[in-house]
Amino acid sequence: METTRLESFSDGVLAVAITLLVLDLHVPDRTHGDLGHLLWNQWPNYAAYVVSFFVIGIIWVNHHAVFSHIARADRPLMFVNLMLLLSVVLIPFSTALFARYVRADTADAHIAGAVYGATMLAMSVGYASLWWWATREAGGLLHPHLDAVQARRTLRRFGAGLLAYAGTIGLAFISAPLTLGVHFLLAVYYAFNQLRVEGQQPAPGND
Amino acid sequence: METTRLESFSDGVLAVAITLLVLDLHVPDRTHGDLGHLLWNQWPNYAAYVVSFFVIGIIWVNHHAVFSHIARADRPLMFVNLMLLLSVVLIPFSTALFARYVRADTADAHIAGAVYGATMLAMSVGYASLWWWATREAGGLLHPHLDAVQARRTLRRFGAGLLAYAGTIGLAFISAPLTLGVHFLLAVYYAFNQLRVEGQQPAPGND
Amino acid sequence: METTRLESFSDGVLAVAITLLVLDLHVPDRTHGDLGHLLWNQWPNYAAYVVSFFVIGIIWVNHHAVFSHIARADRPLMFVNLMLLLSVVLIPFSTALFARYVRADTADAHIAGAVYGATMLAMSVGYASLWWWATREAGGLLHPHLDAVQARRTLRRFGAGLLAYAGTIGLAFISAPLTLGVHFLLAVYYAFNQLRVEGQQPAPGND
Amino acid sequence: METTRLESFSDGVLAVAITLLVLDLHVPDRTHGDLGHLLWNQWPNYAAYVVSFFVIGIIWVNHHAVFSHIARADRPLMFVNLMLLLSVVLIPFSTALFARYVRADTADAHIAGAVYGATMLAMSVGYASLWWWATREAGGLLHPHLDAVQARRTLRRFGAGLLAYAGTIGLAFISAPLTLGVHFLLAVYYAFNQLRVEGQQPAPGND
Repeated sequence: METTRLESFSDGVLAVAITLLVLDLHVPDRTHGDLGHLLWNQWPNYAAYVVSFFVIGIIWVNHHAVFSHIARADRPLMFVNLMLLLSVVLIPFSTALFARYVRADTADAHIAGAVYGATMLAMSVGYASLWWWATREAGGLLHPHLDAVQARRTLRRFGAGLLAYAGTIGLAFISAPLTLGVHFLLAVYYAFNQLRVEGQQPAPGND
Repeated sequence: METTRLESFSDGVLAVAITLLVLDLHVPDRTHGDLGHLLWNQWPNYAAYVVSFFVIGIIWVNHHAVFSHIARADRPLMFVNLMLLLSVVLIPFSTALFARYVRADTADAHIAGAVYGATMLAMSVGYASLWWWATREAGGLLHPHLDAVQARRTLRRFGAGLLAYAGTIGLAFISAPLTLGVHFLLAVYYAFNQLRVEGQQPAPGND
Repeated sequence: METTRLESFSDGVLAVAITLLVLDLHVPDRTHGDLGHLLWNQWPNYAAYVVSFFVIGIIWVNHHAVFSHIARADRPLMFVNLMLLLSVVLIPFSTALFARYVRADTADAHIAGAVYGATMLAMSVGYASLWWWATREAGGLLHPHLDAVQARRTLRRFGAGLLAYAGTIGLAFISAPLTLGVHFLLAVYYAFNQLRVEGQQPAPGND
Repeated sequence: METTRLESFSDGVLAVAITLLVLDLHVPDRTHGDLGHLLWNQWPNYAAYVVSFFVIGIIWVNHHAVFSHIARADRPLMFVNLMLLLSVVLIPFSTALFARYVRADTADAHIAGAVYGATMLAMSVGYASLWWWATREAGGLLHPHLDAVQARRTLRRFGAGLLAYAGTIGLAFISAPLTLGVHFLLAVYYAFNQLRVEGQQPAPGND
């Protein structure tokens, strides 16, 4: 099957999930103090909004990059993609939870940070599975001119991301705010670290 | 008419409905206890989220499969498709209702489970109607190379699904949590049970 | 300009607006009574959901039909289309307002019904403007093979719709529930009353 | 890379953001007075809805216009586009904040107006960056037949918009309601002020 509808459905889910992040920015109620102070007091929500916006944005950019290498979709690919989307749709929830508890003095901050990290770990497992299935040796789904063996080798890079995200779960038990910073840095890393698969000639219209 | 916009509108509705499921995961309020316990206490919401996510995901996968067999849309097809979407858009409501009441000791759990099952029954009636209209004998909408008689015979499989979903409504009055498990199994069944319609040659770009 | 992105943006807005209707179905709070009764008590919400779902659905079907006659978009068309969408996005609000107040004994029911009718009137003004601009005598936007003069004549039908929707505003002051029924009948009328513009030969791929 | 998915993802985000504006129109609670008066009392919400709807609508129209000049996307373009979308997704929040506080007698009205203006400033910085990157001298992304030097010159017009939006932040400290009016006029200006880049011949299918 062609990948057109798979991409357009994924674009839709990612677009809705990234826009729902705004629902965690609350209009403060005047009765609790002056507005400037109340807005300032919401800073974890803004910080979490920016980090999660870039995380979902970069998930989209890389989804785009991965699918520019994939020539056709089969049924398992659709389910692996659904599993990836299941974790992405959780991000607005994890973000709201993190923003609400990151300043707590108690263990609650650690738990909220760990849930945020676990969501990202699930997302990176989804990504690695997608690429693993698309580049498998027999019956892979890549454009025929691409070098499947070399493409497969890039899986190691996905493995590194997996370890990093697992690490942020542990880090959350040391410092929750620090975890948010590390998630931002990981997003920046994935922003630059473009998936490159070489082939004899570029796919028409994809390069 | 071409099916392009019908598919893209349906993709949009399915993408929004599947993402709205996250709105039923609530950020707990600290004043009621410790966060770990409060999050754990929400387990029916997570279970219902996962089941409904896969249900809508598989509705999308099968919508995709059905429309890869359909060559053109007529006006009745659009309305049958709207009826299918009407039931899909109810799923976030039924899911939230189910998650809220599944643990109730009273008849409320049975009612919530029955509403969830009824939503699924409506969805499967929508699906069967869509396929029934597309494969009708005169003026069917399938790709010309496909075997319409054989395609029509697959309607029986839709009929079985209908009976199964009707059964879950009754099951809800025995055990609501069990109903959720059966809905998960039905989703797994429809994940594997691909609609196969044979033809003399594959439609270009659809196989 | 091509109409591709105009159609895909409109599909997106219509898909989100139709799906947001589900947010007006509330999960009742157990503390107020038994669930069956509480769910039954929400019947105006279900009725309003079904009517508004079909209204937006038919807006989409007719948007699709209108744009299958339009060959190219200019800048004013985009703004007329935006005005149409502005009224469509109001529908989830008018629907929630209507469902909340339709049973009130006071003038509130009349006001809620009138707001619902006014939203539909605004929508039908948007539609008539769209068709009026696309079929204007000089520099019209229809496919060249279509008969612009005859297309223009169909404007009268849009005018009739306008009058009917204006009438529902008055009807709201007699009976709010009756108004909802009339809106349903109007939706059914527009479902059947397909825009037909004759031409010398069908546009390739659009008929 | 082609710009197809970049456009469809942006269409999705813009469509969701523009539709979420409706969530700031509240169904009043009858216990607080008569419905007509309560609805009338929400006028800042309607005014802010209309202004923000046209602002996002015109962002979409111009996004469409900008991308009809862009032949291909590179990775930095995707990130500049993400930064633009990050500010657009903030608009439903800024709109709700503005509508809630515009009538306050205190400094709160000024702050709410300034936040609204700052969101628009961020959006116009995003736009200017997008056009600046697409029209850069070496390796620009425009259709080859377009005059890149002349296109670059239109950046000055973006600069003027930037100054105007910065001005609305100051204006908010004089009169918050006046600021909303100015934002409406700015939207009207951008509605008429079409980006025109001349070339030797129109891009096929884009004019």
